[in-house]
Amino acid sequence: MKTISSMAPKKFPEVLRIDGVRLAAHSVGLKEEGSLDLLLVGLDENTAVGGVLTQSSMPSASVDFCRENLRFGKAKALIVNSGNANAFTGPEGGVAVKRIAQKTAKVLSVESASVFVASTGVIGEQLPVSPILDALLPLSKKLAEDSWHQAARAIMTTDTFPKGATCKTNINGKEVRISGIAKGSGMIAPNMATMLAFIFTDAYLSPKLVQKMVSNSVAKSFNCITVDSDTSTNDCVLFFATGMVGNDEVTSINDPFLKEFRRALDLVCIELAHQIVCDGEGATKFISITVTGAVDFPAARRIAFSIANSPLVKTAVAGEDPNWGRIIMAIGKAGEQVARDKICVKLGGVEVARNGSPIKKYDEVAVVNHFKGEKIDIDVDIGLAKGEATVWTCDLTQSYVRINADYRS
Amino acid sequence: MKTISSMAPKKFPEVLRIDGVRLAAHSVGLKEEGSLDLLLVGLDENTAVGGVLTQSSMPSASVDFCRENLRFGKAKALIVNSGNANAFTGPEGGVAVKRIAQKTAKVLSVESASVFVASTGVIGEQLPVSPILDALLPLSKKLAEDSWHQAARAIMTTDTFPKGATCKTNINGKEVRISGIAKGSGMIAPNMATMLAFIFTDAYLSPKLVQKMVSNSVAKSFNCITVDSDTSTNDCVLFFATGMVGNDEVTSINDPFLKEFRRALDLVCIELAHQIVCDGEGATKFISITVTGAVDFPAARRIAFSIANSPLVKTAVAGEDPNWGRIIMAIGKAGEQVARDKICVKLGGVEVARNGSPIKKYDEVAVVNHFKGEKIDIDVDIGLAKGEATVWTCDLTQSYVRINADYRS
Repeated sequence: MKTISSMAPKKFPEVLRIDGVRLAAHSVGLKEEGSLDLLLVGLDENTAVGGVLTQSSMPSASVDFCRENLRFGKAKALIVNSGNANAFTGPEGGVAVKRIAQKTAKVLSVESASVFVASTGVIGEQLPVSPILDALLPLSKKLAEDSWHQAARAIMTTDTFPKGATCKTNINGKEVRISGIAKGSGMIAPNMATMLAFIFTDAYLSPKLVQKMVSNSVAKSFNCITVDSDTSTNDCVLFFATGMVGNDEVTSINDPFLKEFRRALDLVCIELAHQIVCDGEGATKFISITVTGAVDFPAARRIAFSIANSPLVKTAVAGEDPNWGRIIMAIGKAGEQVARDKICVKLGGVEVARNGSPIKKYDEVAVVNHFKGEKIDIDVDIGLAKGEATVWTCDLTQSYVRINADYRS
Repeated sequence: MKTISSMAPKKFPEVLRIDGVRLAAHSVGLKEEGSLDLLLVGLDENTAVGGVLTQSSMPSASVDFCRENLRFGKAKALIVNSGNANAFTGPEGGVAVKRIAQKTAKVLSVESASVFVASTGVIGEQLPVSPILDALLPLSKKLAEDSWHQAARAIMTTDTFPKGATCKTNINGKEVRISGIAKGSGMIAPNMATMLAFIFTDAYLSPKLVQKMVSNSVAKSFNCITVDSDTSTNDCVLFFATGMVGNDEVTSINDPFLKEFRRALDLVCIELAHQIVCDGEGATKFISITVTGAVDFPAARRIAFSIANSPLVKTAVAGEDPNWGRIIMAIGKAGEQVARDKICVKLGGVEVARNGSPIKKYDEVAVVNHFKGEKIDIDVDIGLAKGEATVWTCDLTQSYVRINADYRS
């Protein structure tokens, strides 16, 4: 079966080194196939950190730990394992994450409160701690500035390709860099959990600004994608700013000198988010859904997600069937204010419904051909106000069910 | 592929006649295969009616019309077509439903405000009115008390079997009957929309009581099922009481003489709701999800639905994989108050997780065998308070995707 992996980068991109960021990956046997499953990142001592963690009421032990340390805004190390989520593991899971953080702090001679921990994998199984502890010292000796590809591989679970994005931008004319890695292929994959993303810059930014910027960019990127509507216990996006580049200090998020940088951060996050959708389990189509004319941005996003998460819309796209009645159904169930008789719908740019009624004659051939492609555009105008949002998803195929039903735990 | 249709009635039940209810079905060519697609029901002139209509913000023209007439609480006729939903059809759709109601009123010599109209089928196509109008007079001459089976067939879309339920009960010792028919196989089927149910009794009840009782029973039955989380533009449950049996007048819903009747109405609604789940598109398993210990009933139901609608839970059941980590994930994303470290989970009655941690040794063989059966029981205790709810759903199989993706409109 074809997939939209063809839309993903043909090979892992040349991720730019970030001054103050050194990475190392290792295999400690958490994954059956024995591939890389542990990532250590060493960070310059002045690194500011901000993050967005899962809204699940069943957060993993590592998410609990990160939430605690994010209060201080400073990071000196990041340790990530794949193959086990350390979620729903009770007090034993909490002890596990503390032991790992403490040992990481020890081998790098930093405080445990500046260590960040993330996990992804099976839920409800205790994390084997000893092999991770044993690996930390050798890992700390391998830290290198150019290990991005290995790092991206070490955090994969059912991902079919490693995900990375990178760019150069500037703050008041001073060149700065942003590089990131991510994983995810299904909001939560078979037994393997989680969307993770780690983004790094050499810019000099206060912890407060770092937190605000990552929250803003996540809202426009990772929080605008869905594969199957399922939210992981371990979702975690962390943004680290090492400050090594020594740009002028910027104190306000609205500072005009930050404009280009913020745009660049958005683009890196969106690029990583799109790579996750392209790797959606069983996906064959990349779907962009734009809702305009809603009462506000949250309403527009909820309507867009109602369409993006509808199994009937997703199966119609899988079947290359421009069955827009299902889009109407999905708008209707969103629970948002709409005016039925003002709604307009476009498929691939061709208007098929206007002011609450079907259009009798439209270019059906163009629409059918659009649905045969790999990129599907759905535009809905609610006709009420100025709220707009775009979300991205993939289709729902028999392969999704096969991957999640037939591959036993 | 096997289906859980085996759990559905082997043949259409002997639905009891209801004094004051006469039915007739016909084919007017709205469905491609030329099967029955129009149902007319004549009701005694003293019939009280109550109903529950879709919460979709994109209601069909027929739902708009019923909402208007429900204010009066009196019904003398019901006309239902399958094959076209008359939804998202603009002013033309509104005119269509009025013309059909007026002609129905004329051939039966009743007022248009006592006619109820329901439609199910493709969204966004204008309803062909003329063949329906032409059929009304001949249909009115065929009305008969025993045409339940044909009636149930005439409202089917992608249903694989007609759905009916019936029982005898009493009000203060006087025997009364309840009979109903329903359709649905997917909250909204491929191009075909809707869950419809029509329930009739010969009991004498005020319109106010009828409305209260149907709202209560729907909350415990039709509003506790989900096939794919998609909500139709046309969902409609109507409950008609002809009063022909002449029982003592009952004025309060809390009257002890109503207790048995209310329980019987619940059972008829639950039986019809279960038949819909058993006919879920591609379904092979019937899943009962009970949540206890939530803060209240709405919270319990939302948590249960979060589990019931999770594609990862549904595919795990399809794969006969007791992967309860996915249940934890689904509880976590429900957005309800929970205490992670108090949660207990049972599969087929066997406890697999207790107080927020996995149970190290449980009877895995019993759980695996339970998942090989057709009826799957998932019990979750939140451990906070007394709120509890049960919802019913089916698994998500490759057949669901095939039915909805590969069968083009």
